[in-house]
Amino acid sequence: MPGAPGRCVSVTVAVDANGADLGPAEVLAGAVRAVEADPDLSVLLFAPAVESGHDRVRVVDAPVSVAKEPDPAAAVRRFKDASIVRAWAAVAAGDADALVSGGSTGAALAAGLFGVKRARGVHRPALAMRIPAPQTPFLLLDAGANTTVRAEHLVQFAHMGAAFARVALGIPAPRVALLSNGTEPGKGTEEVVAAHAALRDMPGFVGNVEGFTVSSGEADVVVTDGFTGNVMVKTMEGSSRAVLEAVRAAATSSARAKAGGLLLKPALGGLRAALDPELAGGAYLLGLRGLGVVPHGSFTRRGFAAAIALAARGVREDVAGSTHAALASAGALRRAPDPSAGAGTLPDR
Amino acid sequence: MPGAPGRCVSVTVAVDANGADLGPAEVLAGAVRAVEADPDLSVLLFAPAVESGHDRVRVVDAPVSVAKEPDPAAAVRRFKDASIVRAWAAVAAGDADALVSGGSTGAALAAGLFGVKRARGVHRPALAMRIPAPQTPFLLLDAGANTTVRAEHLVQFAHMGAAFARVALGIPAPRVALLSNGTEPGKGTEEVVAAHAALRDMPGFVGNVEGFTVSSGEADVVVTDGFTGNVMVKTMEGSSRAVLEAVRAAATSSARAKAGGLLLKPALGGLRAALDPELAGGAYLLGLRGLGVVPHGSFTRRGFAAAIALAARGVREDVAGSTHAALASAGALRRAPDPSAGAGTLPDR
Repeated sequence: MPGAPGRCVSVTVAVDANGADLGPAEVLAGAVRAVEADPDLSVLLFAPAVESGHDRVRVVDAPVSVAKEPDPAAAVRRFKDASIVRAWAAVAAGDADALVSGGSTGAALAAGLFGVKRARGVHRPALAMRIPAPQTPFLLLDAGANTTVRAEHLVQFAHMGAAFARVALGIPAPRVALLSNGTEPGKGTEEVVAAHAALRDMPGFVGNVEGFTVSSGEADVVVTDGFTGNVMVKTMEGSSRAVLEAVRAAATSSARAKAGGLLLKPALGGLRAALDPELAGGAYLLGLRGLGVVPHGSFTRRGFAAAIALAARGVREDVAGSTHAALASAGALRRAPDPSAGAGTLPDR
Repeated sequence: MPGAPGRCVSVTVAVDANGADLGPAEVLAGAVRAVEADPDLSVLLFAPAVESGHDRVRVVDAPVSVAKEPDPAAAVRRFKDASIVRAWAAVAAGDADALVSGGSTGAALAAGLFGVKRARGVHRPALAMRIPAPQTPFLLLDAGANTTVRAEHLVQFAHMGAAFARVALGIPAPRVALLSNGTEPGKGTEEVVAAHAALRDMPGFVGNVEGFTVSSGEADVVVTDGFTGNVMVKTMEGSSRAVLEAVRAAATSSARAKAGGLLLKPALGGLRAALDPELAGGAYLLGLRGLGVVPHGSFTRRGFAAAIALAARGVREDVAGSTHAALASAGALRRAPDPSAGAGTLPDR
């Protein structure tokens, strides 16, 4: 991260505590941990009424949850008092500066489109996730907001990712790639092939990359649809966990290996932390008129604390505003209204 | 693997040596290694004329390659003397029992449809790959043959994978899952949601799994389209490699860690071998009237030797025939000709 965003800037984060796998109390514990670590941070926690336990964590009684609704877009229209709808409303009203969602990405996106609207000229918001690959971290988008996309959405994700990488990650000339099943320009779905053709002249575009990109460091920004992005992130996490577990098992397989494992333990601890998805805090939801952070629903308090800190950092660095300005100066905003997806309206499903 | 397939059965494998990243000579070296390890194995190697170096490896002069053609279906129709077309022709004529392809999956599939035809009642052939996840190996299909699929293709892949798991992997009641971006039945692309509904009553169907399945062991057979499958396999390989590299780096980060690394080395060697994609040999191309094996183009001689051994094992276990018979008895063959993809014709692209 470039510079050191000043802690002196006061930030309030609206947190929807419903939908987390471990329940609202775990999210509350994360919020308390986050404000204890940052004296200029406050949290508005939307959850079933409980005692907060900290004077900078204010609990707003919001027991209604749409986190498990199969059709989030319909649910957020129907349940105006749902916690995620009220949390975005706090951002829209200026009572909070950013949002952290404890529930599903679909509900966070649908309620965001409903509450703070799509940013001007953006086709589709996307989840931008910093992937903690060892040696070769990169930004992946869309990490799960849009199950299916059109070519022009991929093209805009490429520009949005490049803008974010410049303003928030301090990479002056980010290398941008499309994820595909082969490096040749003709490889991939119809949408990927069309996006490749449209991106050919984009500064920094390096073509297609394959799944191997998680260890090759070929690109700073990897662009894909939200279905493939979701599968990639979870495959990576699952594989890393499986290999680390197998290393742990190998390190107890004999007396000799046990001795080696003990000596190696401190060095491996650093790797384990670097790969820990909880410490990364989740992904930014970019492309709305307000900043959202989507952590895993499976996070513990540690992960929710990291997600709230990530949201606060995003506010202090003006990630949403700077990314939008960079998108505009790259000429990557759509000019005319998109008939199939008007600004501020809900997506088809 | 069930039983011990008799080495006494003579097998001839047709190998297309064009298209491999390290060149035909590397594939030839792999073929020599494979026949040296198996006295009842012969290889017909389609490659630019070279000295074979072994009396059970016969080189057939076939310098024309379509491995890099952007439209493989058109290329195999146009270049009748291409090495992959001639290799499949040897299988069709009974001169070889199975095929190993050194080039692209697309060319191997297109030439297979052209040369040996689609198996009766199969919509689309698929790449079935045994994934060497530590602790929890599983079969993934489609690992890369079909970039896009319809719901009925996914449904048949599920049955094809279950049949293969029973007859070739010895799993009496395989658990079958669809890969998606969420476990709920409504999660995923339109095709995944429709396939889920159609599979609900299939014996062994356990619903959707996410990318985490690579470490969770929730399913024996994981079904997806060839685009997502390709990304998943390569992400997994890249992640495993990155973590093992990072473990190696950690093990040289201090004198203490170095001592630990040395003690742990033998135990980690086993893990490295278990995760090595070269030792797995590649994937079976199922659903044709002949068995194909598709290794990575990046393999060294070691990987090509493993691919040829995998093909020989598939012949001795009658993987193609038994899978087809199991598909038929599960009632999973299509009854009427599919107007959009008639048996034995080439796919749309």
